[in-house]
Amino acid sequence: MKIYDWPTGPYPARVRIALAEKKIQSRVEFVPVNLWKGEHKKADFLAKNYSGTLPVLEVEDGTFLAECTAITVYLDALEGEPTLTGRTAYEKGVIHMMTKQAEIEMLDAISVYFHHATPGLGPDVELYQNREWGLRQRDKALRGMHYFDSVLRKQNFIAGEAFSMADIAVIGGFIFAAIVELPIPQECEALLAWFARMQERPSVREQLAIVPPIH
Amino acid sequence: MKIYDWPTGPYPARVRIALAEKKIQSRVEFVPVNLWKGEHKKADFLAKNYSGTLPVLEVEDGTFLAECTAITVYLDALEGEPTLTGRTAYEKGVIHMMTKQAEIEMLDAISVYFHHATPGLGPDVELYQNREWGLRQRDKALRGMHYFDSVLRKQNFIAGEAFSMADIAVIGGFIFAAIVELPIPQECEALLAWFARMQERPSVREQLAIVPPIH
Repeated sequence: MKIYDWPTGPYPARVRIALAEKKIQSRVEFVPVNLWKGEHKKADFLAKNYSGTLPVLEVEDGTFLAECTAITVYLDALEGEPTLTGRTAYEKGVIHMMTKQAEIEMLDAISVYFHHATPGLGPDVELYQNREWGLRQRDKALRGMHYFDSVLRKQNFIAGEAFSMADIAVIGGFIFAAIVELPIPQECEALLAWFARMQERPSVREQLAIVPPIH
Repeated sequence: MKIYDWPTGPYPARVRIALAEKKIQSRVEFVPVNLWKGEHKKADFLAKNYSGTLPVLEVEDGTFLAECTAITVYLDALEGEPTLTGRTAYEKGVIHMMTKQAEIEMLDAISVYFHHATPGLGPDVELYQNREWGLRQRDKALRGMHYFDSVLRKQNFIAGEAFSMADIAVIGGFIFAAIVELPIPQECEALLAWFARMQERPSVREQLAIVPPIH
């Protein structure tokens, strides 16, 4: 398998953590796509993924799989332990819901803030910016952090009582928050305690070692 | 099971079509949440789904499951034929990718257009609008239709050679396009032919009978 990604990107980090959890990094060849040069928006890459986003997994028959959730579901169905996307209907449903909420309420919102209300990837890549929308999304992400804090006051992991794809998605949010220098509010004590526990996992620690420090 | 939804909403339609495909509508009690009165943005409903979106599935133990993909994955794991989210790792990966692309490139983009660059649900519900962003998203959705047309020139269904959750997500996009009176471009011949085939399915036909006509 090949993975087209950029090692320090928050979305690529999600798949790298999933691979490390499943201990199959050695089966993957990583192909760098330079975000800062906008290589993910050029025709060559858009032919692999219409949406122009990283990461993309190229499977054995040459099919390109984009979208972190889709890639994680694929890897999870390919390999056994640990299960990242649930075993029962209930677990699968809750994990998919919380992963999507991690995206819309935090990770994707910070991404929009980065691309629209900061210099983002620079003027050669950010050809259109809507600053007002970007700032709204930053505020949405801050509300999202409080939401996940409230979730973690009742349970140990984002989607219940086991580590899953949903925890990885929120970790992606933390990585993007560090890049845009958006601190996690100190009053989000359960969220910060959860993040400290997450860093006990080798998969998370290895990934955090190559990204900017998280505040 | 209970489903909180609004029958003519494009997202609720996705779960209603999934239920009809799996022939389990009779096991569900539908509870109306009036979008036009903004009931989905009030505290009572936000306690069920922080994101304030429809539909939400309440399962037997009282857990609320939001997000169409999560609900469809849950229903699919609960019941056998037909499979809407794939059997093999490969099928699951492709279906999840194409479902997400149907959202970001078409359905969600039209939703943002509706809420930001049209009167949307009216001034009492649309408390903030960013018209420029909404118009950009309309253009994105039109490009997305051409993308799905190119996909359907090579295969019979959105995620390959079988009907799946990804087809349902694009049908959701068609329903939202009808609501905002955005016609599907006539040159998207493969997309229009696919949609004609979709309407041969009772699940789709029943849902289309209760939404605005699709151009």
